[in-house]
This record gives sequence, C-alpha cells and structure tokens, in this order.
Amino acid sequence: MSTQVLDKRRVEPETRLAIIDCDIHPTMKSLSDLNPWLERRWQEHIVTYSEHMRQGLAKTLMHPRMQPAVSRGDAWPPTGGPPGSYLPFMQEQHLDPNGVQYGMLQTLRPNGNSQRNLDFGAALCTAANEWQMEVWTRKDRRLKGSILVGQEWPEAAAKEIARRAGNRDFVQVAMPPRADEPLGRRRYWPIYRAACEANLPIGLHVSGTNGHPSSGAGWPSYYIEEHHSNVQSMQGLVTSLVMEGVFEQFPTLKIVLIEGGFAWVPALTWRLDKHWARMRSEVPHVKRPPSEYIREHIWFTTQPIEEPEDPRHLIDLIDWIGEDRLLFSTDYPHWDFDDPHYVFKVPLDEARKQKIFRGNAQALYGLD
Amino acid sequence: MSTQVLDKRRVEPETRLAIIDCDIHPTMKSLSDLNPWLERRWQEHIVTYSEHMRQGLAKTLMHPRMQPAVSRGDAWPPTGGPPGSYLPFMQEQHLDPNGVQYGMLQTLRPNGNSQRNLDFGAALCTAANEWQMEVWTRKDRRLKGSILVGQEWPEAAAKEIARRAGNRDFVQVAMPPRADEPLGRRRYWPIYRAACEANLPIGLHVSGTNGHPSSGAGWPSYYIEEHHSNVQSMQGLVTSLVMEGVFEQFPTLKIVLIEGGFAWVPALTWRLDKHWARMRSEVPHVKRPPSEYIREHIWFTTQPIEEPEDPRHLIDLIDWIGEDRLLFSTDYPHWDFDDPHYVFKVPLDEARKQKIFRGNAQALYGLD
Repeated sequence: MSTQVLDKRRVEPETRLAIIDCDIHPTMKSLSDLNPWLERRWQEHIVTYSEHMRQGLAKTLMHPRMQPAVSRGDAWPPTGGPPGSYLPFMQEQHLDPNGVQYGMLQTLRPNGNSQRNLDFGAALCTAANEWQMEVWTRKDRRLKGSILVGQEWPEAAAKEIARRAGNRDFVQVAMPPRADEPLGRRRYWPIYRAACEANLPIGLHVSGTNGHPSSGAGWPSYYIEEHHSNVQSMQGLVTSLVMEGVFEQFPTLKIVLIEGGFAWVPALTWRLDKHWARMRSEVPHVKRPPSEYIREHIWFTTQPIEEPEDPRHLIDLIDWIGEDRLLFSTDYPHWDFDDPHYVFKVPLDEARKQKIFRGNAQALYGLD
Repeated sequence: MSTQVLDKRRVEPETRLAIIDCDIHPTMKSLSDLNPWLERRWQEHIVTYSEHMRQGLAKTLMHPRMQPAVSRGDAWPPTGGPPGSYLPFMQEQHLDPNGVQYGMLQTLRPNGNSQRNLDFGAALCTAANEWQMEVWTRKDRRLKGSILVGQEWPEAAAKEIARRAGNRDFVQVAMPPRADEPLGRRRYWPIYRAACEANLPIGLHVSGTNGHPSSGAGWPSYYIEEHHSNVQSMQGLVTSLVMEGVFEQFPTLKIVLIEGGFAWVPALTWRLDKHWARMRSEVPHVKRPPSEYIREHIWFTTQPIEEPEDPRHLIDLIDWIGEDRLLFSTDYPHWDFDDPHYVFKVPLDEARKQKIFRGNAQALYGLD
C-alpha cells in the first residue's frame, strides 16, 4: 500500500498496462448534491430529521482522523471539495496516468442501504444512482456505476435493479456486507433474483452499519481492530450465502467481494468443507462442498493486498483461489490506495497479469 | 391473581357466568409429541441438532423455578406429565367448574417462531397446529386453536394461514411480540395480508426470543424485571404497528395483545398523539392520530389484571380503552392464573361484565 502519490508521467507509456480498476470512490460534497433527484419531501427530511441508522459506534468515527476523509493527502482537488468529488482531478491524478480503461464506481455515501426509514433509504439510493450517471459515467465513459440498493427493503431493491437493467452506465448491484442479518437469509433473496434476471453481479464493498458488534468477539477498542473486522464480516457473509443455499437457488448469481482481502478464503473453505462433510444433514439444500460454490460464484478485488513474508505464498493463494477470480482495484482516492505498478511484490507471468489487471473484470462485467 | 385453586363445586351453578377464556396453555410432554406430523428429517433434526434460537438469557431460565413449569402447584395432572398436558384434567379443573364456554389455546412451545433454521421452524409450527387439532380442539369443541406461524419467514407464515383459513378449529393467528425486528416493519406485512384475507385476528401472547435485551435500558438483573419488560415489548410493538402504517395498509387487521396488561395504554397513546401532532411530516403514511388506530384495531386480554390502589381507577381505564376492547383470560394453568370469580376488585355492571367475560370475544372471534 502507498499513501504517497507517484509522478506517473515519468513512467514510459509503452510499459504501462491498460487496467480495469474495480474500486474507485466518487464523493458528494454534501447530501444536498442529491437534491435534483430527490422529491421535495426528502429534501426537507434531510434538513428536519436527517439520517436514522443503526450504528454501534456512538460518538466514534468509522475511520480515523489521521487521514481526513479516509483519503490520500494529495487527493484533495485544488478546486475545493473532498477527495473524489471532482472528475477532472480524478482523471488527471488517477484515470489517465494509471491507464485506467474502466473504473468501477463505489459510492459509499449516502448510506441509503442502512437507513431505518425504508422510504428515505430507497429515495437516497435512487437519487445516488441518478447522480452517478449525471455526474460521472456520462461525463467519462471509462467510469461504470454500481446500482445502490437498500437491502432491508428487498422489494424496492429489486425494483431499482429491474429499472436499471440493460443500462450500461451500471455494471453491478451494490450492497454492504454488514446488513441487519447475514445476507444469505431468505429475506434478501428477492435482490438475488432481480440481479440474476438483470444479469448483473452483486458487488459487496466493505461497509454497512447494523448496530451489531463488528467483531464476533464483541465491540473492539481500536480502529486497527475495526479495520480488520471487515474481514470477519466477509467470512460471515460467504458462510451465510453458502449455507443458506443461495447459490443452489440462484445458480447464475455472481458475487464480488470488494476491499475484504482474499488470503482468508482457503482456510475458511477448508473448514467449511470439513464441517459440511460431517453435518450436511442439517443443510440438505447445500448439495455440494462449500468450496465448489465459493470457487464458482465469488470474485475478490485485490486491494488492500495481503503481503506474506514469503512473496511466493501470494502465488500459492492466487493458485488456490483461481487466477480468474481476482480483480485488480486501487481504492482511489482512499489512504490505503494500491498502486498498480507496485502492488505485487512477486513477479506474475504476463498471462496472469493480464487476467488480474483487466481480463477477469472484462469477462465478469461484460466489457469490451 | 391467585396461586391457590378454589373448589368451584361449592359455587352454585346459577351464580356462574359462562365465560370465554382467551388464554389457556396446552402443553406437550416433549417435542417428540409432534413426531406424527413431522417428516422424518425433522424428527432426526430434533435428536441431532435440536433448536437454534437467538436467546439472550444464556444459562438462565425464562421463568423462575419457584413455580415449576410456570404453573400453579395444583395443576400437575395426577396421571403424570406437565400442567396443561392432559385434557380430562383440564376439563375437570378449569373448563367445567369455571363455566368456560370457549377457551382460546395459546401454545407457547415448540418455539417454531423463534427458530433461526426457518425450515425447521415452519415444520414445528405446522406440526403444532396439527397437534392442537388432534389432541385438543377436536376432542373438546370448547377449545379453539391459534395458528402458530414463524414471523421470520413471512411467506411460509402466509401459506400456513391460507391453508387453515375457514377451518373453525382455529380462530386466530399466533405470533410472539418479540421478533427479530419491531413487528410493524415491512418484512412482516405478508403475514398481515394473509390474516386479513383469512379474516382472522392476530393474537400476540407475551413471548419470543430475539437476542436483544428485553428492556430498552439493557439486560435486567432480576426475573421481576424480566416479567415487567413484557409490557415494554408490548408498547414497542404497538408503537411500531402504528408508526409503520400497518393499520393504514391493512384497515381490517385486528390485533389481540395477550398477557401484556392494558393500564399502560392511555399514557402511551397520549404521548404518541402529541408527537404525531408535531412530527407527522416524518410519517406521512400515518394519516390519523395514533389513538384512533389503537382504539379501532387492538384488543387486550385481562390477565394479569392491574390492581390500582383505588379500584375506581380500573373503571377509568376500562372507560378509556373501551369496554368492548377487553377480553377476559385466566392464563390457566400458569401460576398467575386469574380466577373469574375474583378478578375484578371493583363491581362491574352486568352489561359490562357480559361483554368482558364473553361478548367481546364472541364478536371478535365470530363465535356462537
């Protein structure tokens, strides 16, 4: 990882690889940026009642102050506004010099998915989807949107997906891994049905507040624990999707885990396979070893990439997960940005590099 | 309340009032009593995996040991088995001497509604509904069943209701007030739709485990607090049903709150009306003052009846709630049984007595 920006103009163009960056964060200056696509009722709601979420971290930021806006120090546009809020600066600082052929937008605010007021949440998601089109994807065709939906009102989420289906401004559905319940539960199935019907993967970027402790051991004390607990959420999510039979029910469903790492996958899978062999009578709807569902249905983005002491272990991991299941991502403009030129501390052969940096995302998202 | 049984044969028949008892608990000797109506898979599941619920009271009984099986000391059938498990003894001890014209069954076990395994939970509910018919309502036509459903899988619950609709062995749907979320939330609406279509009230008897603290102030220390926290659950439930707009969406829905008292209703309603007058813009789907929905849609059973120091205050309460909204109940065979002859510490006029002890339930449940 790197918090320093490098001058990419010094890298010769012919040595650059065209990449697909599967995690770029566009930002609003404020919630009122959504006003053009919000009914007057919700514009007033923001002023009068504002947000109402289940959030266990009272008086605590989700992210530390050490890097304001969770961002690289150099990512603040000279024209003002927070990092990720101004397209020309994003083009100049990231898309152009890093040879980004396509960039997948992950809009973390406005938290439409975690609002307890379901109507308000759905209105925020819809407005943020319009905002992605008007402010980003139609201004720069390299950028691709993710359809924000509120998982706690699956019927509205399914409608939002159906409404955007076929619109190539969007290449996936976006939900947070931390929902009110583990996401394999049946209440969320209408969303998976809609995603399959629209032939769209579901991207789950680390986020979400549900009021539950972020670690299975309870509320952690430090940000360093909080940051790691995202990985535990991903493990719970994968276990839930497999064990509730989601992939049996939706055999064409594709899941992308974003910013949750991937080094934990083999260990989780070995354990699940072993338990399944012994206790499958509890889950007869799970017809095959968990590892098979995971290998078939789940993709992983690379950032923040794990850095084993022996770099060859990274190769072992890639071999195990499958070189066709990893998607390169930078997390621009966040502080733990992975630079495409320095991300892998071990040499990858050209074919593998081509897949991870571009080919896998191209195939998954159906891009040129 | 009384923990002593009285010899009802000493009361002259002509002084007895025919009553409808809206809370009688039939009991299984063990979960395996349901085997005749459970697929082999679930019979084996009980042996191999047993129940899996969210229950915050680890290593703690829901009820104190002072009254085993939460029951009157004299309610254990001489033929063996727990209180409420043997019809002839229930007839001899309660139905006959107390002049019970109809008795509404509330089957608290087998917790089908709180199982995390939704298939298992639905199977338990269905089996317990068959058990109610075979063991109770078809053996004594005075007894009427409540259709147990698992609220966390609303589609299955709605199917179970539709399947029993028109079967007069059942007069209502049964759910616990403590669900995973406040019961007004949209995820539960399919159940309300099904109940309205079947023209059945929903009876909510204090119970349910969801892993959340039973009091809004956190986990209580004592059983005496736990017992009272049921009243808080009822208040949260009523607030949720009103504020989520359930009664606007389902104008024919009828709700019966069982064993949760009723003295708290005026205070809650006053406050809700006041808040609604000021902040109704947050809940524009709530078209009328909360008190109107509560008066129209909610019934209350009497046991354990509140005992104000000045008995006339009980009359004030009845006047406020409406004499047509109270349903007499004994809670037989539980320890805090209310005896129909001694329950009201203040004289009621004959017309009012007739309504509370019989007429209201007769009208609500469509009985002869």
